[in-house]
Amino acid sequence: MPKSPELEHPQKVFGWAARDTSGVLSPFNFSRRVNGDNDITLEVHYCGICHSDLHAIKNEWGNSVYPMVPGHEIVGVVTEVGSNVTKFKVGDKAGVGCIVGSCRSCDRCTQDMEIFCSNTAILTYNCEYYDGTRTYGGYSNKFVVDEHFGIQFPDNIPLDATAPLLCAGITVYSPMKYYGLSQPGMHLGVVGLGGLGHVAVKFAKAFGMKVTVISTSISKKEEAIDRLGADDFLVSRDPDQMQAAVGTLDGIIDTASAVHPLLPLISLLKNDGKLVMVGAPDKPLELPLFSLLMGRKLIGGSASGGIKETQEMINFAAKHNITADIEVIPMDYVNTAMERLAKGDVRYRFVIDVGNTLKSS
Amino acid sequence: MPKSPELEHPQKVFGWAARDTSGVLSPFNFSRRVNGDNDITLEVHYCGICHSDLHAIKNEWGNSVYPMVPGHEIVGVVTEVGSNVTKFKVGDKAGVGCIVGSCRSCDRCTQDMEIFCSNTAILTYNCEYYDGTRTYGGYSNKFVVDEHFGIQFPDNIPLDATAPLLCAGITVYSPMKYYGLSQPGMHLGVVGLGGLGHVAVKFAKAFGMKVTVISTSISKKEEAIDRLGADDFLVSRDPDQMQAAVGTLDGIIDTASAVHPLLPLISLLKNDGKLVMVGAPDKPLELPLFSLLMGRKLIGGSASGGIKETQEMINFAAKHNITADIEVIPMDYVNTAMERLAKGDVRYRFVIDVGNTLKSS
Repeated sequence: MPKSPELEHPQKVFGWAARDTSGVLSPFNFSRRVNGDNDITLEVHYCGICHSDLHAIKNEWGNSVYPMVPGHEIVGVVTEVGSNVTKFKVGDKAGVGCIVGSCRSCDRCTQDMEIFCSNTAILTYNCEYYDGTRTYGGYSNKFVVDEHFGIQFPDNIPLDATAPLLCAGITVYSPMKYYGLSQPGMHLGVVGLGGLGHVAVKFAKAFGMKVTVISTSISKKEEAIDRLGADDFLVSRDPDQMQAAVGTLDGIIDTASAVHPLLPLISLLKNDGKLVMVGAPDKPLELPLFSLLMGRKLIGGSASGGIKETQEMINFAAKHNITADIEVIPMDYVNTAMERLAKGDVRYRFVIDVGNTLKSS
Repeated sequence: MPKSPELEHPQKVFGWAARDTSGVLSPFNFSRRVNGDNDITLEVHYCGICHSDLHAIKNEWGNSVYPMVPGHEIVGVVTEVGSNVTKFKVGDKAGVGCIVGSCRSCDRCTQDMEIFCSNTAILTYNCEYYDGTRTYGGYSNKFVVDEHFGIQFPDNIPLDATAPLLCAGITVYSPMKYYGLSQPGMHLGVVGLGGLGHVAVKFAKAFGMKVTVISTSISKKEEAIDRLGADDFLVSRDPDQMQAAVGTLDGIIDTASAVHPLLPLISLLKNDGKLVMVGAPDKPLELPLFSLLMGRKLIGGSASGGIKETQEMINFAAKHNITADIEVIPMDYVNTAMERLAKGDVRYRFVIDVGNTLKSS
C-alpha cells in the first residue's frame, strides 16, 4: 500500500482532484515534501489542461489511482531552492512537464531521454514517488520538484501561453528533431489542428518549413492559414484534394487520437517520407504495408521528450515568440473545460489561471 | 497496344514463359533488340527464382501480361558491348537485377534510387520498354541491357550462388544500410529464414552484428545457428521465449510475407528500435500504435535498392565470401521448383542452370 502523503509531508498544499472515474474535479487538501537539497519549490501560476488529463481522471487507461490531482504543464515562480540547486534561484520563472523522476543512470537517462528510463520514469501525477507517496500534478498552488526536472523559463516569456509547450510543445518538437523533419524548405503535413497540431504548425514555420494542415473538416482552414501561418490546407475527406497532393510531403506529424485510415496519409508522402504518430488511438490501426515498401516510407512513434530537449524547445520558443493559442480559465471552470475538451471545443488549449483563481476552502 | 517484340527485334532468344494464370512455364521463342551503343549483351549462365516470380506468373498482383518470361536474378558473361560502354568488356562476369530502365534525371534517379524513379522505373520483366515492347526476364539464354543497369561481378565470385543477391541480397542489404542497422555490435533480429532472411543473417554477421533469427517453427534452429552463424533463435509462437527477449533488439528485418502480428516483434525492440518490413503480406496488418509511441520505435518499409548500392553490395559480398545457399536446378525442373517454392520447400533459393540446361527446341 502506498503511504498516505497527507500524513507524511509537512507542506500543506491545496488543489483540485478527481475522486473517482466520473472524473469530476473538486477542491482537495493534501501535502508535499519539504524542499530537499536538490529540490525547488514553485508557486504555481498556470497549468495547461492536456488531453491526457481527461483520459486519466476518467481512468480511460485503466491505471488511475484516486484522489488524483492532474496537470503536467505547470509554470510558476521559484519560491525556495535547496542547497545543491544550481539551475534556479528564488524568483526565477520555471516549469515542470510530464516527468519528475527517473533513475538518472541507465543508458536512456544518460542520453537525456529520461521519459524512456529503463528503470522507472516517475510521471508528474498518478505515479508513485521514491518515498512511496503518490505524485500530484499542477492543478494545485504549490509544487516541489528535483531541479533536474525543472525547466528554466526565460524572463521574456509569457507564462500562461507557454505552459502548454511543456507537454504539447515537446511532444511535437521532439519527433520533428528526431525524425529529421525540421529542415528549412521541407514540406510538412500536420494532421489534426488541436493542442498539439497548432503548436506543430508554429514550430514548423519557425524551422522554415512549408506546412500543410490536414483536417477532417474545412472549418479550421481560415484559422490554419491566416492565424497560424500554414501554407495550405487539405480536407482529408475530400478524395480529389488528397489525390492532388499525393507524393508532396517530406513528413507528417499525425496528432489525431481517433482511429483513422493511414493509407491516404502515407500516399501524401514522397519517397523516404515519414509519418510520425504522436496521437494514440485506443484501437490498432490498419497498416497498409505495400505502401510503405514502395517508396521506402516509415511510420514512427514518439512520446514527449527528454528534459534537455524540453529546455532547448522552450529556449527556441522564447527566441521565436512561439506560444500556444490558449483560453485562460478560472480553476472552478475546470469541469466545464473538460466537457468542452472532450468535444474538441477549444482553440487550442485550456490553461488554468491557478495563481489568481485557486482559492483554498 | 504494345508492339510484338517477336516482330520487332532481330536477336533470336529462347526461354521459358508462363502463358496464362496457371503459371505453368514452357519453352518460348522470342527476340531481343540489337545491342545498342550503351548496351551490353549477356550470355545468361544462371537465374535465381524469386518468390515474386511465383506471384507474377500466377497474376497474383493483377498486372501480369502473357506470355511472361520471369527472372530478375540474372548472371552471365558479357558477349557484346556497345561503343559507349565503359563499365564492361567482352568476357566480363555481369548481372542484372530487378530493373532495366529509369529516367536517369529525376531526383530519385540522380540519388541512385532508380527503383523509385519518379517517372518510370522499367522492371526486368512484365513491363513495357521504351520502344513499346515487353520486357522479358532471365529465364532465357540471352539478355540485352543498358550498361547502367548491369552489375559488375568480380572474377572470384561464384555466379550460381551470387545470382540471388541481385534481388534477395539487395532487398535486405539496402534497408540495413538505410535504417542504420549495419553497425558492429548491434543486435539484429531476422524474421523468416527463407531466401531473403538467410542472406540477411549472413550480411549482418559480416557487418559484425549479433543476430537472432525469429521463426514460427523450431525446425530451422540448428541450421540458423550452425550453418548460417546466427547467435540465437526465437520461436515466435513460444510466448516465454518471446517474453524473455523483450527489449533486446536494435532492429528487425522482417521478411515474412504471410499476415502476422507485429506487436510481439515491436516488443522485442529496444527504445528507438526499428522494425523494417521487406516482405509484403497481401492484407493490411494490425498496427499497435501505442507500442510505437512508448519507446519511439518505427516501422519502415523498403523495396530492393539502387544500382550503385547493388554494386556496393556485390562488392561487399565478394570481399566477405557471402553467397546464397542454393539448390541448382535444370530448366525443365522449373515448374516443380515453383510448386516447392509455394510450400517453402527450398533451402534457401532455387537457381536455374540456364547455361547448361536451357535447350532450344
